[in-house]
Amino acid sequence: MSDESAHERHASLVFRPVTERDHARVVGAIPEWWQTPNSEALPLLLPRLFFQHFSDTSTIVEDGDGRLAAFLVGFRSQSQPEVGYVHFVGVRPDLRGAGLARSLYERFFAQVRALGCRRVDAITGPDNMRSQEFHRAMGFTIGGDTDVDGVLAYLDYDGLGEHRVTFTRVI
Amino acid sequence: MSDESAHERHASLVFRPVTERDHARVVGAIPEWWQTPNSEALPLLLPRLFFQHFSDTSTIVEDGDGRLAAFLVGFRSQSQPEVGYVHFVGVRPDLRGAGLARSLYERFFAQVRALGCRRVDAITGPDNMRSQEFHRAMGFTIGGDTDVDGVLAYLDYDGLGEHRVTFTRVI
Repeated sequence: MSDESAHERHASLVFRPVTERDHARVVGAIPEWWQTPNSEALPLLLPRLFFQHFSDTSTIVEDGDGRLAAFLVGFRSQSQPEVGYVHFVGVRPDLRGAGLARSLYERFFAQVRALGCRRVDAITGPDNMRSQEFHRAMGFTIGGDTDVDGVLAYLDYDGLGEHRVTFTRVI
Repeated sequence: MSDESAHERHASLVFRPVTERDHARVVGAIPEWWQTPNSEALPLLLPRLFFQHFSDTSTIVEDGDGRLAAFLVGFRSQSQPEVGYVHFVGVRPDLRGAGLARSLYERFFAQVRALGCRRVDAITGPDNMRSQEFHRAMGFTIGGDTDVDGVLAYLDYDGLGEHRVTFTRVI
């Protein structure tokens, strides 16, 4: 689809804080939206606790029909209060390419800046090139120290075999 | 082992806040300590972010030899500031039965009470009878609405097929 039609669809989108009731449809959307080899395990990375306890810095986007369009789950670090952390972001495939993820990040930056944060961190898997390109375009510094299939990543960052690329940005 | 010898071993235990460097050995211990059918997936429930951002309400216990003895990962809810949440607790099998989990919970209660919390929540799987007995003994109210193999649980609480029993207690 063209950027123009995506922009038109964006005009009817509604951004609001997540609630616990949003959990089921967000984890239900993950396998379809991601289509990565590990997509079945991804819901384990997004337990209901994030929707219960970090709702004020997490956002759901719905389209004009009330369908799930995108989401961002993030929080302010409790033990590093100057840091905001983006845990999970997803945009429905037919709405990509028109700045929706950027809007979600900018909303999060404003929310955690108001809470006193000066930096935002995030991570992704070495095979998620879309995420790496997005964070680079958003001005994040990319971290990694070992070549994993052509991408610098931290080995076993989230457990054995769970390599990750890190992102950090001043806000 | 007898409670007496477990108590003797407890005398040399050291409790301290978790650090990011503790993450690898904690997730490494999970498959051995849990021995449940899903133990391979459990590390996904405990990403490094908990060790980076909730270290002040999460505790590592080491024995006299510096070996991992137990841990508790918990936090104060950001959007429900009167609620503390215990996300993950583990005690090394040879140290069970002598009150170590109770000590970890009491330490957490004191930490989050000092932050303003008045309630603590936690969950477990319907097949984790040890956790259900422990929380009942600790004065938690147990929640669930559907019989799952003889245990009341909430169906699909953490995603499809991920049923959970809830615990809540005033502190």
